[in-house]
Amino acid sequence: MKKSLILAATLIFTAMTAFAQNNDGRIPAKGFAVYEEKGHFKPYEFTRHAVGDHDIQIEILYAGICHSDLHHVFADWGAEEYPMVPGHEIAGRVVAVGKDVTRFKVGDYAGIGCMIGSCRHCDACEQDLEQYCEEGAIMTYHGIDRYNDNEHTQGGYSNTYVVAEDFAIKVPDNADITKVAPLLCAGITSYSPIMQAGVKKGDKVGVAGFGGLGHMGVQYAVSLGAEVTMFDITEEKREDALRMGAVRYVNVNNPEDMKGLDKTFDFILSTIPAKYEPVMYLKMLKLDGQLGIVGLPAFRNMPTLSVAELVMPGARRKVFGSQIGGIKETQEMLDYSVANNIYPEVEIIKAGGAEIDKAYQNVLDGKVKFRYVIDMKTMK
Amino acid sequence: MKKSLILAATLIFTAMTAFAQNNDGRIPAKGFAVYEEKGHFKPYEFTRHAVGDHDIQIEILYAGICHSDLHHVFADWGAEEYPMVPGHEIAGRVVAVGKDVTRFKVGDYAGIGCMIGSCRHCDACEQDLEQYCEEGAIMTYHGIDRYNDNEHTQGGYSNTYVVAEDFAIKVPDNADITKVAPLLCAGITSYSPIMQAGVKKGDKVGVAGFGGLGHMGVQYAVSLGAEVTMFDITEEKREDALRMGAVRYVNVNNPEDMKGLDKTFDFILSTIPAKYEPVMYLKMLKLDGQLGIVGLPAFRNMPTLSVAELVMPGARRKVFGSQIGGIKETQEMLDYSVANNIYPEVEIIKAGGAEIDKAYQNVLDGKVKFRYVIDMKTMK
Repeated sequence: MKKSLILAATLIFTAMTAFAQNNDGRIPAKGFAVYEEKGHFKPYEFTRHAVGDHDIQIEILYAGICHSDLHHVFADWGAEEYPMVPGHEIAGRVVAVGKDVTRFKVGDYAGIGCMIGSCRHCDACEQDLEQYCEEGAIMTYHGIDRYNDNEHTQGGYSNTYVVAEDFAIKVPDNADITKVAPLLCAGITSYSPIMQAGVKKGDKVGVAGFGGLGHMGVQYAVSLGAEVTMFDITEEKREDALRMGAVRYVNVNNPEDMKGLDKTFDFILSTIPAKYEPVMYLKMLKLDGQLGIVGLPAFRNMPTLSVAELVMPGARRKVFGSQIGGIKETQEMLDYSVANNIYPEVEIIKAGGAEIDKAYQNVLDGKVKFRYVIDMKTMK
Repeated sequence: MKKSLILAATLIFTAMTAFAQNNDGRIPAKGFAVYEEKGHFKPYEFTRHAVGDHDIQIEILYAGICHSDLHHVFADWGAEEYPMVPGHEIAGRVVAVGKDVTRFKVGDYAGIGCMIGSCRHCDACEQDLEQYCEEGAIMTYHGIDRYNDNEHTQGGYSNTYVVAEDFAIKVPDNADITKVAPLLCAGITSYSPIMQAGVKKGDKVGVAGFGGLGHMGVQYAVSLGAEVTMFDITEEKREDALRMGAVRYVNVNNPEDMKGLDKTFDFILSTIPAKYEPVMYLKMLKLDGQLGIVGLPAFRNMPTLSVAELVMPGARRKVFGSQIGGIKETQEMLDYSVANNIYPEVEIIKAGGAEIDKAYQNVLDGKVKFRYVIDMKTMK
């Protein structure tokens, strides 16, 4: 009913806004922020830039809690600015479109991932790899939006977002919108290196780290026909891995599980967010196998690989890092996921400071299976 | 005259030996060894196993001095056994063949590189990558030859070698035999990763470390049509790089030289045998570029790459290590080198302890351009 009303309104107003505007055109927004390093989440009101000609405004329906949100809140990757509204896994509905917008109309589902802008003309942008923009991709939160008066960006733990349509992802109407948000970071971050490595039917694939990213990685690799082994440090997720299509689960703390793994994999994806020994996985690769790394632990716990490990036990294996994916690939991932019914397993929580605080603690304690999603519609 | 005599003899004896044999069939050999860690080179007499049905015996004409020989003499990579006769860049002439040998005849040129045996049936051996044999490739020196009574192998700074024909490399008659020896290690070690990376015409290639390996790398990359930049830490080799076909020489200690290099290379080959920061080269790669590492510094100076360096400045660049090459690829490299007149630049020294000691000091001091080769025929 609500949807049909909005659609009807679209016929009349090409640039309607369902949210209020301030006198200067800026959009009032509210969400949950930490006000200091390692702080608790509390309500926060702020504004977003006006809906420009090429922008869309999204009513945020769901926001995923990514492990990297925790790293930012805890300043694990260096100093941050506060108040900070995290959230770069955003699924919502378009409530306003600028006059030159062509890909979206009011009422559409739309998503936003980790970045909301880039220069669009450097070599990286020309290759549809805006995340590596030579002038710097603009992050969805804790970023400075140089194309909008150096606005300090705030993320998806909030009720609305204004974004250039070129950095928004179209979400098909038949998508399960409650589960879409984590695809925008966890999904693309695991999908992209699997595609870069050329994983195909029959390949032996390992996925190390069975959290938000890892549980997407196993699903993508299985969907491509690979024989997937899941690695983690606990017994508690063994059944989950098999349920998601893995043929084997390895608890790396169980010596029995670790037997016979050397030189057996074509590709291993490491999503591990903590200290570990990458060479352990390098040794498990066949000759010419590849280790794709997407997990970025806190700087104080950063794993290393030595040249000796690369040249000796790991020779003729390729190692690469990967960051999320470009907008074009993110759209491809989203369409692929919906078409193949690949979604995160989510636990939906209410939009409240205490609820988010508790979810963070559970993520730290490894208790989440597998992604918390905040239902932003429940925000008071 | 000597050659025609030997060829004539071949017609009569299919398994002749030009060298003496002991009563047990073992072959007396003499060369130069260090008798202790960091010792000086002194004459050393020893024996090699008898020429088996599938073996050939080579009279060693030239032996290259590889930087890794120094690492072994100095125990940079761990404890060694002494006396040790180094040398895994061996060029010589066949003086005896076993009765089942098919690829060689007495009088042929032949070469030996870093390994002289492997299991021949594991996955690596099946892929013609015997250097990664799962049971262990047998090294030309400081190895234990499990197929010949666990003989402790001694290397090429000597007058003769007995080797299975499958681990000997055919050297065309028209090769410049004075320069062939370094191809067997420096040549293949730089050739193989260039081929693994798929270097092709027009590619921007960097070669870091302008020593024995690096000066081969630049020549191979140039021969494939790549635009090559040579990196080293001195001004003294600038002209040499340009003479060998590099379009640019970068003294990494010269800030002016270092400008404008980020994100410009398709492939960089690191042959550096000392401490350095691999991430510096990672940053110079284009997206999807590759860094191939073959230089293995002493363990106490081993460079490292952190996961943060791979995932952040180095994302979507591939890093791999490589060790020499398989026998098939070594033969391919040798044929390619001779056909394209690609040789090391060598300084030939006499076969004497003092001469080898002095050469080692010059290698340590970075004074060699670019490879010392010992003329083993001058051994008294």
